[in-house]
Formats: sequence, structure tokens, C-alpha cells
Amino acid sequence: MGRAQVNYGWGEGSGKLWMGEKAQVNYGMGEKAQVNYGCGKKAQVNRDGEEAQVNYGMGEKAQVNYGMGKKAQALLANMSVLYCIYHGPQGLQHIAHRIHNSTLILAEGLKQAGHELMMTDTFFDTLRVQCNGLKAGIKQQADNHKINLRQFDDGSFGISLDETVEEADLNDLLRIFECKSSAEEIAGDLQSKGNLKSISNSSFKRKTSYLSHPVFHSHHSETALLRYMKQLENKDLSLAHSMIPLGSCTMKLNATVELIPVSWPEFSAIHPFVPTEQSRGYLQMFEDLEKDLCEITGFDGISLQPNSGAQGEYAGLMAIMNYHHHRGDHHRDVCLIPTSAHGTNPASANMTGLEVQPVKIAPNGDIDLVDLKRQVEKYNNRLAAFMITYPSTNGIFEEDVREVLELIHHHGGQVYLDGANMNAQVGLCRPGDYGADVSHLNLHKTFCIPHGGGGPGMGPIGVKKHLIPHLPSHPLVGVGEGRNGGAVSAAPWGSSSILPITWTYIKMMGPRGLRQATEVAILNANYMANRLENSYRILFTGKNGFVAHEFILELKEFKKIGVEPGDIAKRLQDFGFHAPTVSFPVSTGIMIEPTESENKDELDRLCDALLYVRDEIQDIQDGLVDVKDSPLKNAPHTAQVVMSSKWEKAYSREQAAFPLPFVKPESKFWPSVGRVDDLYGDKNLICTCPSMDSYGDYVDDQEAMRSSCKQELSKKPHWLIKAAS
Amino acid sequence: MGRAQVNYGWGEGSGKLWMGEKAQVNYGMGEKAQVNYGCGKKAQVNRDGEEAQVNYGMGEKAQVNYGMGKKAQALLANMSVLYCIYHGPQGLQHIAHRIHNSTLILAEGLKQAGHELMMTDTFFDTLRVQCNGLKAGIKQQADNHKINLRQFDDGSFGISLDETVEEADLNDLLRIFECKSSAEEIAGDLQSKGNLKSISNSSFKRKTSYLSHPVFHSHHSETALLRYMKQLENKDLSLAHSMIPLGSCTMKLNATVELIPVSWPEFSAIHPFVPTEQSRGYLQMFEDLEKDLCEITGFDGISLQPNSGAQGEYAGLMAIMNYHHHRGDHHRDVCLIPTSAHGTNPASANMTGLEVQPVKIAPNGDIDLVDLKRQVEKYNNRLAAFMITYPSTNGIFEEDVREVLELIHHHGGQVYLDGANMNAQVGLCRPGDYGADVSHLNLHKTFCIPHGGGGPGMGPIGVKKHLIPHLPSHPLVGVGEGRNGGAVSAAPWGSSSILPITWTYIKMMGPRGLRQATEVAILNANYMANRLENSYRILFTGKNGFVAHEFILELKEFKKIGVEPGDIAKRLQDFGFHAPTVSFPVSTGIMIEPTESENKDELDRLCDALLYVRDEIQDIQDGLVDVKDSPLKNAPHTAQVVMSSKWEKAYSREQAAFPLPFVKPESKFWPSVGRVDDLYGDKNLICTCPSMDSYGDYVDDQEAMRSSCKQELSKKPHWLIKAAS
Repeated sequence: MGRAQVNYGWGEGSGKLWMGEKAQVNYGMGEKAQVNYGCGKKAQVNRDGEEAQVNYGMGEKAQVNYGMGKKAQALLANMSVLYCIYHGPQGLQHIAHRIHNSTLILAEGLKQAGHELMMTDTFFDTLRVQCNGLKAGIKQQADNHKINLRQFDDGSFGISLDETVEEADLNDLLRIFECKSSAEEIAGDLQSKGNLKSISNSSFKRKTSYLSHPVFHSHHSETALLRYMKQLENKDLSLAHSMIPLGSCTMKLNATVELIPVSWPEFSAIHPFVPTEQSRGYLQMFEDLEKDLCEITGFDGISLQPNSGAQGEYAGLMAIMNYHHHRGDHHRDVCLIPTSAHGTNPASANMTGLEVQPVKIAPNGDIDLVDLKRQVEKYNNRLAAFMITYPSTNGIFEEDVREVLELIHHHGGQVYLDGANMNAQVGLCRPGDYGADVSHLNLHKTFCIPHGGGGPGMGPIGVKKHLIPHLPSHPLVGVGEGRNGGAVSAAPWGSSSILPITWTYIKMMGPRGLRQATEVAILNANYMANRLENSYRILFTGKNGFVAHEFILELKEFKKIGVEPGDIAKRLQDFGFHAPTVSFPVSTGIMIEPTESENKDELDRLCDALLYVRDEIQDIQDGLVDVKDSPLKNAPHTAQVVMSSKWEKAYSREQAAFPLPFVKPESKFWPSVGRVDDLYGDKNLICTCPSMDSYGDYVDDQEAMRSSCKQELSKKPHWLIKAAS
Repeated sequence: MGRAQVNYGWGEGSGKLWMGEKAQVNYGMGEKAQVNYGCGKKAQVNRDGEEAQVNYGMGEKAQVNYGMGKKAQALLANMSVLYCIYHGPQGLQHIAHRIHNSTLILAEGLKQAGHELMMTDTFFDTLRVQCNGLKAGIKQQADNHKINLRQFDDGSFGISLDETVEEADLNDLLRIFECKSSAEEIAGDLQSKGNLKSISNSSFKRKTSYLSHPVFHSHHSETALLRYMKQLENKDLSLAHSMIPLGSCTMKLNATVELIPVSWPEFSAIHPFVPTEQSRGYLQMFEDLEKDLCEITGFDGISLQPNSGAQGEYAGLMAIMNYHHHRGDHHRDVCLIPTSAHGTNPASANMTGLEVQPVKIAPNGDIDLVDLKRQVEKYNNRLAAFMITYPSTNGIFEEDVREVLELIHHHGGQVYLDGANMNAQVGLCRPGDYGADVSHLNLHKTFCIPHGGGGPGMGPIGVKKHLIPHLPSHPLVGVGEGRNGGAVSAAPWGSSSILPITWTYIKMMGPRGLRQATEVAILNANYMANRLENSYRILFTGKNGFVAHEFILELKEFKKIGVEPGDIAKRLQDFGFHAPTVSFPVSTGIMIEPTESENKDELDRLCDALLYVRDEIQDIQDGLVDVKDSPLKNAPHTAQVVMSSKWEKAYSREQAAFPLPFVKPESKFWPSVGRVDDLYGDKNLICTCPSMDSYGDYVDDQEAMRSSCKQELSKKPHWLIKAAS
């Protein structure tokens, strides 16, 4: 690629020169970062009086994660925040000055060469220039220097610089535009002139302070930042510690060999709008992947553009609606959705302008066919789409899925299949074969893109032939030419830099490996269900008594004695496990999905933990233990609590922290925060910024900082401290 | 590079195809790995009765480290062991069969093509073949296929295969040697013949079991291995947690950007004997580095061959001896070494055949000039070399170093300068300027190669012009042609794949940065010495009261009350710090080297910890605390001990584990093992393999496993359990 990505001229979103992993420096990012950093919906109160602001398993990142949505761009937000932490406000200002000075030099050179700057004098990093009579020559010269310029329809050029631009790059640009002076000479001219017209001398100059939180003033060497990041990492329970049995989330192995190519500049440093003739290998990877995904799903066309499952739903429903409208069926405006669906389903239908009508679930967890027929007949001509998850969110392969989908088609509806549970199907059955018209694929679930850190995800959609013309296109890059669907993402292939992960996974597994993975995923779920079924109620099974790749433990009966699903989830943290999915799709249950990545030893450890917890529940049921003083209600137990001189609980420190032999002091993962008051946290927005006093010397403009915490601070103390015992 | 490195034919050490990071599979490696794994000199007894087999800060790796020497090849041994853990005995056997079968097919093809196999029928992976009349053609064909073959002087070729060889590679090799059959056809022939002549049917077939330790049967998926490695990682206190103030070891930042290129196949996959015309970039890096190191040290020539500082000493002294012999000075056989020298100095001199004579140290820590003059005159004509460390191991820049070295030269001796303390000199002074004739450079200290995991290190030597002809050469690769020194390492440029680290460090720092690093390293040591000097005795300072880049705390006075340097070192673990260097160069002291990588906050934390410890000592001195029940004697305190229900110590759990506010429960680094009985451990070799019974199903040949533990097992229980309190 060489330097092919410099100087696009798309303004703030410009590509990077060489250093793909660095975050963008924009004026104003500081504020955004700070708001993300210190505040979050889930900032919490800890019953043990610890400085608790985090959720288990997510460390301080949890704050960033909330407020951005599940599987959104939290990983990228973290990268930006760490960039700000490393550089601090002075460092960012230095970088911004460097960029702006380079742009000033370039602007002056362009003027000296007789070109016309089309933007005002108050620019930061981006110029638009109209050249007289040189246009073709400039394009050719830019190509020769491996520099891409933005070309406007009126023949003018856009140029945008960033902090990686060096003197040699500036000189190349000046040469391309036939300026006779060098960057150094122009800099000398500008300096001697004095009183430069620049944003630093304009009314746009920032006068308020920013990044005033101490964290932006504490870690300015690589050693210091490394240790801070290590501390954060050690607060995260990840797949590197133990299984994450999150039903419906498919937390499987993200193999190192799949992840390595993501850091190669050949993938990581490609600007999303790079001319396609400069990225043939990249395009070939997309084509390969589309072909493989078609083969896996039985669809005829794929769009890689959607960035998440939910965005895939939106794009898929838009394709359906375009299809109906294209045929003149403007009256089709109802979307049927079973009540057990993921919450994103009705949300996406709403966004597409559809009227959502719920379909009931039968006692065995399947779709209630009687209700479905009634609804289909009721809405008949108005039926636009039916959304279904397969295997169902209840963890069951519904045997009559073909008939159900035929019924929809019979009434003129289109079938949207939620692909969240694709990990139970790959190599065994194909949505395109049993009646789906469109489906999204959560590449960050089934196809190994990591989503523990909060994204980026990828939710491409597959469609049958008749929907291909209605897939997303892109106004700037030639993807899906002739399609009537608009863009759903800014980038033509979505978060395409992570697609090598899925490509590598599919190529390394091959057809046999992919099918085996699915089989083992289903086997693992059934093994666990089998070990647990005498102690817990497995909520739904198929008619042969099996589950699919996940299953639900129904915990309703424990409510009588005051034990909630959340108590069991929190207690599992004391064993070093991430909680399963709580209260979805059944509010009184927990859902477990082991995936094919876990071996029998690990499955047994989680079963042992759940059986131990069941005994603790039994002790409460038998009246031996008061639920209020039980390990279940006090869980999770932090190191601070367990090793405090004061210990007045009814059970031992050992039962609290080392309940089973596999939980060993030398390898124990300690929860970084004790029990959080969920209800209080959900109802109250709490700012976790340090108090104003604690900022000390850092803040030279306290008013500005105060205003960056966008909510009214409560009059109550930030940390509501209750004694634990 | 393409496939340029396949099939060298050097037997067991053959290069890898594509997968540079995998360890070599050799018959017999299993045993070695097992011996390394389970046994080690320092396997220890833990006063708290924990299953303790490790040293603080090194995790289980410590065992591998000991017995191989400091900064040896422990990292590489770990890689090999993890390879064995992942594959297990069945996996290794499968790999070996694959390699051997490929070699059988190739051998059969070569015979069918009319060539003569020069080795016996009992080969594993390596063939030597004499071809009739085809030699030049074969070389050309091999080049065309990007395959390197070993060429013997008699015109025969050597070929060696490994597990990365695929069918296409075999077919290429068969084509090169003009065999008309394909690998598949030959495999068919061999199979139909039956009763194949192979090592599997020979007396060399292994009949005993191997890798019978449970660890080789527990982690066969990437998920499982990842978690096991994470557990080991979490037992290591590393630079990612806090400073490692090891005097004389220069534990500085190993920046990520310096380390990344090490994993690039352009560096990691180069066979040490690759034809030099195929590795021009690699050679250019060596040349650059030699030039830069010459400029930094004031020397005229560099040899990159020595793999460690000690090997550098050996190579440097050999160069000196060759020089003397070359001049006919065969009578020069005495090497003078100050008593404060690193232990490697006299060891290397002995290996070179020199008679070692110690030189006294004056009370101020400098070399005793009177004694030196006496010795120089005494040995006069016999004086071969003088070994000196500068700044001295006592942490002082000796001001009369020029006069000292002139004295040696005046008596015909050569000066060997131990470069361990180069981090105090870079950019400020040059050994070549003040009188050294030869010096090694610990690239793993001053020049950023990580050595926390036990190597590989790099100890290149620099020499003045007259010694260049006596630097190491190599019999196979044209390095230092015309030199009369032999090879000191098997590889021509030593552990050359890690040299990009040093190259990148020097290029990124530039002259200003390198000098600044040295200045800050000296500043940091003086800052700490200054904060501590009212509480501890700083043993040596220069005449202006300053130290160099490290300093010694003299702890002799505390011996009276029973407090040893080791007690303070162990107590620092409770604060999350790695111990400083203990009992070197002064047996009653500890030596602290902060390096330039640490910021003031971290220096202050270590000072705060040392001052807190000083208060604890004072309490003993004042009779307030019984030394036997003091935190000092019980340190380090593990999580198991601190949170046990039983706590009968005279001080609180909090004082034990959280002595200062910066030691927080949520970020505390827990020692994985309590106090070890050093003396017992030094005197007794203890096997830490599980007892025979615990092997259970894993062992099908217990006798074989027993014999793989090469020492007589003590009749005592493996874990001598004493109650802690």
C-alpha cells in the first residue's frame, strides 16, 4: 500500500499514515472521552463500602460499555481514552498544533503556487483547493507519490493532514501542486510574518480546560501506561480465565492465529474509501467470505456492511420493505415477532416503520401455532415480515419450522431469521433451505470475532436471490452497484478490518471442522443439562429430551425463599466464573451456553459450582441458613472483605472465597467489587468522577470540568456506604 | 524469503517451514522437557505448608531457570515445554510419525530415481544423497523451487524434513531429484509392500513411556492451554506490575514497538545458516548495529556472536589470549580481578586457562591502587589481562579509571571491561576512550532485550583495532573472514533474531535520547539514595556524595537483632515489589537500580515501602516486636495465609497484606508462595513431581517415569510442612 492513504481530505475521519492503531486526534475528543470515562449508567453502590464503580468482569471498561449499547464500539472508545491518558491535555495540544501548523504551511504553499483555497481561513487540518489548468497533472503526480487526494465533482481537491505527516510528506504535496518553495522555506516565511491567521488566533480557540481528571495526568510514560492497563486487565474476567457461559452470546475461543492478521497494516491501515484498484487483496477476501457464508447459510447474496446484529436486522428488514414497495405492496406494514425474541427484533422493526405484533409462545417453548395462524389471517394482506430465531431463544430446534415459514410465505410475508443461534446450525442445516428470506450472521458470535471487550461486532446479512437488489449499497465506493438499498454504515464493508478473523476461521476449520464445532457445541450443552437436571429444572427440551446448544435453568421456585437468579449469578463469581445470561429469555431463569471451545474438565467445574450453589440453596430451604446471611446474598466476596480483620458472617472465610477445591488461592480470580445494589444503580445516575476538591492542582478551570459532567450531581455522597454485615 | 529455509539437512537443528514460532520436535526432547519441568535446584519448602515449588516473581518458570544459569535459554525451554504440554505424548508421536513417513517416501523416491542414499536405513528425518551426474542441475532446480539443500564437500546433498512439510513440498523435492513418481504414488507402493524398513520396526523404536506428568495430559485445546499459561503468567511479578530494582541487572522498559518485529517471519524464520545472498536485510541490520555500537562504545570492531555477558567475557578473553599468543607472549597467563567483580569474571578467566589473582577493594569501594600496583609489579611479564567493571559494581564512577588502565597497559596487560553497567555510560563516556581494549555489552540490560523470563540474552563484544583479527569467526557462514578466533556460538550472529529490539531502540532514541536515558537513570538512583540516606546507610558514594545508576544499602547493623537482607527482600513482596539484588556485591547489603524507565511516583512508592520496613525494624530494635513474630520474618504473606480463618500472628492481617495505602485489594499482586527455607533448599534437591500414586491412569509405565526423575528421591515427604505460627 505504501502511503496510499494519506491526505484524503474527508475532514475529521481522514485515514492514517502508517500508524493504523493510533486513535484519531480531533478537537473536542477530549470532552467526549472524559464523559465516557468518569460517568456511566451503571456506576454503582457497593454494600461493603468499597470504591465500587464497575461491573464484574468488565473492569472500568464497563462504564464505557454502558451508554453505548451492547457489542457497540467500546473497544474503540477504550483505545481513544488510552490515547488521551497517555498524551494528556498538553500532549494532545502539542499534536493538534503540529497538525495545524503543517496545514498552515501547506495552505500557504498552495496559495504561493497560485491555487485557490475554497474554504475559509479558519481551518484545522483540511483544505479544499481549486487548481487552474493542472488537474490531470496533479492526479498523476499524486499517484506517482502514492498519495490519494479527494476529488470533488467540481474538479477541486480535498486534502487532510494528521500528526503522522512528516516534512518529507509536506514537500511531496507541495511538489505535486507545483509550489516552488519547500516546507521549511514556507515555515520561515510564516514565522517572519508573525500574527498568523490561524485558529489559534481566532475566536474558535478553546479557552476552557479539558481532560482534567487525574487519570489524564498520571500515566505519561510507556511503563506507567503499561502498568495501568495491566491493572485494568486484571480486573476483567475473560475467556483467558474461565468459561463465559452467556446464553445467546456464544463466547467461544477467539484463536490467536485468527487475530494476528488484524494487526497487519495490509488490513489495519486501509482507509475505508481507498480506490478499489489499490485494495485487490482486501476485496478478494470479501468475495471469498461472501461465497463461503452463502454456502454455509444457503443464501444467494451477502452484504458485509452492517456493523452489528441489530444493524443487520435493520438492513434486512429494509431489504424486505424495499422488496414489498418495489412490487407495489405498500400496504404491507405489520411484523410478527414471538414474545421470546431478542429485544432488538421489535426495536429494529420499529425503526423500519413496521407495526410490531407479538406472537405467543406455547408451554413447551415453541411458537404457539394457533396464535400464529390467527395473527397471520388477521393481518393477511398487511403482513410484511415475520422474525424468528432458530434454534429458538429457548434453546430448542423447533421441528415444524418449515411449516411455520411456509405459512408466512403463503400469506405474502417475508421471513427474517435472527442468526444469533447460528452456532447450533453451521454444517447441520441452512436457513436458506428451510424458508428464511434474510438472516443476519453475528460474526462476533459464531464466527470468532471477539466481543468480550464490547465490539466492534459484525452483522452481515444473507438473502435469497429476490432480495439481492435490495441489499445495502454505498454512495462513494462501488459496492453492490445497481442496488436500491441505501448505506446502513459509513464504511462500505462495515468494520471490515476484523473480517480476516472470520475468513481465517472458516478456512482453517474447513467443512468437517465447522460441522464438528456445531456438534460439540450441542453435545456440551446436553452434557451440562444432563448433569444438572436432577438438581435444577431444565425449562425447555425437544420431544426427545434434548436441548440445542444452550439451555435455561428455571429458578422460579427459589423466589419463595428469597433467592433470585441474580444471587446465583453473583455467587458464581466466587468460583471464578462469569455469570450466565440472567433473566433472558425467561425472567426467572438463567441461560447457559457452553460452546464447543470448552473441554469436559471446565464443563464439570461449572456443573460442580452450580451443584454446590444448589446445596447452599437447599440449606436455606431447609431452614439451616438465614437467606439474609447466606453466601448467596453476600456474593461476590472481594479480597478486601475476606481478609479484613473483621469477619462476622455466619459462614467461614474459606466457604466464602474457596468453596471448592479447584478455587485455589494461587490462581483465584478476585472480583474487584462486592455486591452492587442493582435497583439503586438502575434508578440513579451517579457520577464517579473524584470530588472537585480531590482534583487539586490539576484543575485550573473547575467550572469547565463541572460542566463536562453533564448531569446534576446528587446531593447525596457519591458512595453510599452501608456496612456489609 | 518464500520457502528458502526448508530442507537444510542439518539433522535435528533443521529450519522450519513457515511456522517459525513452533519449537522443534525431536525424539528424546520429551524426557528433557520433563526433567526441566518437574525438578530444579530451588524446589522449595514453604513454612506455611503450601504447595510451594517456586521462587517469587518467576512462577513455575523459576525451576527451568535454575539449573540453566541466569539469563540462559529458559524462555526457549518454556516454549518447548508448552509445545509438549499442548501436544502431549500422543500428539508428539503423531508428529514424529508424520515426519518419518514423509522422509520414508522421499528416501524411496530418491532410490527409485537412481540416487544413492549415503546413510543407513535407520534414519528419522534426515537423508544424505549422492546423485549421479545431476549435481548442478539439482542445485538450479532447488533454487527455482526456493528450497535450500545442504551441499557437502563431496558433492552429496543433505535433506531434512519436519512436520510443516506438506505433500506439495515432497512432490517438489521429488521433481528436483528427477523422480518420476509422486509422493502419493510412492506412499501407495510402500503401503502395498508392507513390513517397511523404518525406525518403527527397528531396535531404536522407543518402548518406554514419556511425558507422563499430568500436565502433559491436561491442556490439549487452545482454550485450555491459554488458561494454563494465563495462570502461570499471573504468578509472575513482572515489569508490567511494578519496578524490578535489581542492582546490576538493569530491568528497564522493553518497549512494545521494539518487540513487535521479533515476531515477523522476516526475522523469526531465518535459518542461522541461510545463504547470505538470501538475507541481505538481516545482514544490513547487523552492520548498522555494529556501527552504532562502535560509536556508542568507542571501539573499532564488534562481534555479535556471544549469547550472554558471560560468553562475551569468554570471547573477549580469548581474543586477548590470541593476541598475546600471536605476538609470541605465551608467558602471559595471569588475570587480575577486583574482589567486587561479578562471579562470571573469574569463571570466564578460568575457562580461558588464565590464573586468576584477586585485587583488593579500598574502604571507599574503589579498587585498592596500592594492592593493584603491587600485583602488577609482582606478575609483570605474566600479566595477560585485567578485568574491571565501570562504573564499579559498588555503584561508583571511579575517577582514576584512566590511570588504572594505563598502569595495566604499561605492564603489557590488556584491559577487559565488564559492560554490565553500560546503562550509566551511554552518551556520557566510552570504554574505548578511557582505556578498555575489549568489553561485552549486555544487550539484555542496557539495550532493551527482555531478560525477565530467563533469556535469550545477547552479549556482543567490542574491541579496539588491534584485537579485531582475534574476534570470533564461523566455520560455515562468512562472518569475520580471515579472523583467527574460533566460533563461541553455534550460530554466526548468536541469538540474532532478537537483535531488532536493540536496533529499534537505538534508532528510535537517537543520540539525544540515549544520553537522556543515562542521565535519568543516574538521577533516579541519586533521588532514591537521597530519600533513604537518613534511614539506611548508603554504603558507597563518590567524593561529591553521589552514586552512579545504582546503590547499596548496608544492612549489617540489623544482623544483631536477627534481621537479614533476605527478610527485607521478602517483606518488599508484600508491597508488590520484586526484591532488589540481595548480598551482591556486598554480602550484608541489598543493591537497588531503578533505571530511567521509572517515574517519580514509582520511585516514591519503593522508598515509602523501604521506610515502612525500616520502621518495622526499629520496632524490633526498640524491643516492641519479637523478631520471630515480626512481619519481616513471616513475609511474604500469601492470600491463603492472610484469609485463613486461623490468624494468630502478633500483627493484623491488614499490616501483613496491605501495609501502605498504595497496596490495594483490587490491584494487589499476591505472592504465590510464602517464606521458603533457603538454606534447606540450597542443600537438598527436592523432586516436585507428584507422587507416583497421584499419576493415576496417566502412567502406563511407572518405572520409566521414575527413571526420568534423575535423582534419588528423598525418603522424607516431598513437602516439609511446618506450621507458620
